[in-house]
Amino acid sequence: MSELEVPDPEARLAELGHPLPAAPQVAGLYLPATRAGDVVFTSGAIPMRDGALTMRGKVGADITIEQAQDAARVAVVNALASVAAETGSLRRIMRVIRLTGYVASAPGFIDQPQVMDAASQLLVDVFGDPGRSARSSVGVAELPLGAPVEIELVVLLR
Amino acid sequence: MSELEVPDPEARLAELGHPLPAAPQVAGLYLPATRAGDVVFTSGAIPMRDGALTMRGKVGADITIEQAQDAARVAVVNALASVAAETGSLRRIMRVIRLTGYVASAPGFIDQPQVMDAASQLLVDVFGDPGRSARSSVGVAELPLGAPVEIELVVLLR
Amino acid sequence: MSELEVPDPEARLAELGHPLPAAPQVAGLYLPATRAGDVVFTSGAIPMRDGALTMRGKVGADITIEQAQDAARVAVVNALASVAAETGSLRRIMRVIRLTGYVASAPGFIDQPQVMDAASQLLVDVFGDPGRSARSSVGVAELPLGAPVEIELVVLLR
Repeated sequence: MSELEVPDPEARLAELGHPLPAAPQVAGLYLPATRAGDVVFTSGAIPMRDGALTMRGKVGADITIEQAQDAARVAVVNALASVAAETGSLRRIMRVIRLTGYVASAPGFIDQPQVMDAASQLLVDVFGDPGRSARSSVGVAELPLGAPVEIELVVLLR
Repeated sequence: MSELEVPDPEARLAELGHPLPAAPQVAGLYLPATRAGDVVFTSGAIPMRDGALTMRGKVGADITIEQAQDAARVAVVNALASVAAETGSLRRIMRVIRLTGYVASAPGFIDQPQVMDAASQLLVDVFGDPGRSARSSVGVAELPLGAPVEIELVVLLR
Repeated sequence: MSELEVPDPEARLAELGHPLPAAPQVAGLYLPATRAGDVVFTSGAIPMRDGALTMRGKVGADITIEQAQDAARVAVVNALASVAAETGSLRRIMRVIRLTGYVASAPGFIDQPQVMDAASQLLVDVFGDPGRSARSSVGVAELPLGAPVEIELVVLLR
């Protein structure tokens, strides 16, 4: 495949309305992502944009599924920004290996997978079939800063 | 070791009353399992059987430890089915690397490890010593569809 | 670099007031840590010392952030003891790849990262820059035995 035929994930993200941001700011004590051989592990990413959370609260109470899906898209894009910070470019990604999605869940909220579908859909829209990953969706009590979702990725590089 | 001496994990599962089911149905957006080199990561598996949860609710309130142990066995067998979907056969497993067990926990329920012991015991019964893994047991607020447990595996292939 | 110039993480831990304990006792069904190639995965470690939890309860209610930070330091040292049990020595660690920190959180407690900063700081104090990892901090409902924190590590060996 020539260079020109390789789809550019960053351009695709921008087309979809999600220009790749700078890597999430993390305290000096940890890193946005690390690498073991050709596998990259990201830190948990929350729906921060321009230094502030786009929304706060528990899904199923303060936050609807549709709003949480928006938050999941912002978070997964931040996780991709963390990968890019480690690798230089999203073109290095061969496939997404695992997505772990934590959803701050009000009592009785059990549609965590529906929330994470928005993140998985975005990964498929950007990377095609290699964007399909193993996935766990978990409903948790509280997330950092009151975030409704937190997403971490494991990706395989070419 | 000749082929005949290699224990057949699938036969062993059936002997133990847990015939390997088809891989868990997942929405088209993600996969039962993925692979990075010789390491397989599964999606979070819940106690689905024949398309329905075997039980729902919080452990320590609606669900007893014994019931939750049954659910953990069903879930870990589903996770193995996900590995088989990716690799073709459980014989490919060299060892189980990590089991993460999320337990939907009623307030004050702190016996998550006892629930996950049932899953670990089954892995040891099927694979012998290579079924012993690193393990984390975590008590969470809510799980998908109201499942009492969710289990994900990382396994190493031969 | 000669052997003498290689910093000794175990000596550094002792200087910092955290002599490396024996690996956490785990039931025979699982292991303190496992290895896939040059990557080690630990079991979830809780703040056990001499066979008992150093504290119990929910952070933000029974337990202050400062107390939880103490617990996080004890837990991460136990996770390092698990790595040493698998590898023979902490000198084998090339870098810390990922820290996952579960914090048993009272309703409304959203400072999980501040709790985990204590664990990250200790890793940096012991290993220097290679102690900086990808990190996820998650607030959960309940942890084993009533532990306020549980920490798991993924590390890369030389």
